[in-house]
Amino acid sequence: MADEVILLDFWPSVFGMRVRIALAEKGIEYEYRGEDLWNKKSSLLLEMNPVHKKIPVLIHNGKPVCESLVIVEYIDEVWNDRAPLLPSNPYHKAQARFWADYVHKMVNDLGRKIQWSRGEKQEAAKKEFIECLKVWFYTYETVGNFSVEAECPKLIAWAKRCFEKESVSKSLPDQHKVYNFAMGLS
Amino acid sequence: MADEVILLDFWPSVFGMRVRIALAEKGIEYEYRGEDLWNKKSSLLLEMNPVHKKIPVLIHNGKPVCESLVIVEYIDEVWNDRAPLLPSNPYHKAQARFWADYVHKMVNDLGRKIQWSRGEKQEAAKKEFIECLKVWFYTYETVGNFSVEAECPKLIAWAKRCFEKESVSKSLPDQHKVYNFAMGLS
Repeated sequence: MADEVILLDFWPSVFGMRVRIALAEKGIEYEYRGEDLWNKKSSLLLEMNPVHKKIPVLIHNGKPVCESLVIVEYIDEVWNDRAPLLPSNPYHKAQARFWADYVHKMVNDLGRKIQWSRGEKQEAAKKEFIECLKVWFYTYETVGNFSVEAECPKLIAWAKRCFEKESVSKSLPDQHKVYNFAMGLS
Repeated sequence: MADEVILLDFWPSVFGMRVRIALAEKGIEYEYRGEDLWNKKSSLLLEMNPVHKKIPVLIHNGKPVCESLVIVEYIDEVWNDRAPLLPSNPYHKAQARFWADYVHKMVNDLGRKIQWSRGEKQEAAKKEFIECLKVWFYTYETVGNFSVEAECPKLIAWAKRCFEKESVSKSLPDQHKVYNFAMGLS
């Protein structure tokens, strides 16, 4: 029996993007079900992730896996015959997990602060974000009026190398579209 | 060459306890170096975890691994010939990771709120904590004046089964000692 893979997602979600990239790297065919989180969550989402009620959820042969980093490791372990996502060496794997956790917290905590706070609080979050030097998001830069490229050119060089991979470039929405969405412009 | 394993820890830390239990389960001999976090952090801690500057840090043959959940997985992968800590089936492993992440966030976020807030905020945190039903800590119960046992007897039954294992009971400090410490009583 062929695997049935369904992804419950929301297109501007950076956590969803992670899973989309992992699936693309592995060349896994799947059904994409976009949720409209501004309106009503689907009954399938509530059934599949009753704890957090959040996307992304990967449904593999009827069974749900939740939380983007958990999903990425699951994908890597189930489809372990191709395109490894994590190093096999335990120490290198621990380092990858450490940085994934770090970026996850940063995007979750600081990204939100930059987006939703103003004035001194936003300045503090921007400063902390730049110090973290770990992600590059057009929306945060534009809202916060700063340039990650100027602050951390090596990070941008890395991001550009990532974008040369189809699994990345084809899995992510246009950054201007995400900005417009985040600002309520579209 | 025998493995050199050092644990940088702080005795009341629940994140440190996690690592102590994992090491005990695997029967790994290690040198315990207790930090005095109320005073000055050791130069070794700052050198080994320059990003977060936090315990626990496992130093294995001179190389640091940070973040308690990352450390537990590292231990499980390096000493993979005995006492598996995570299931081998990828789906069960994903479930274990999901709940570990869940408990981690709950202890980090709600545990702190119960400990440091008062009045309405503390009440809200207590309610959320009880709803989460996932850990059992004497300190939080006493500070928050509620009983996890009354609210969730199955959880307590599970905790008691855990305590029957020497790797758990011998790795954790006395709960009254932790309470006194947390309250500044000792």
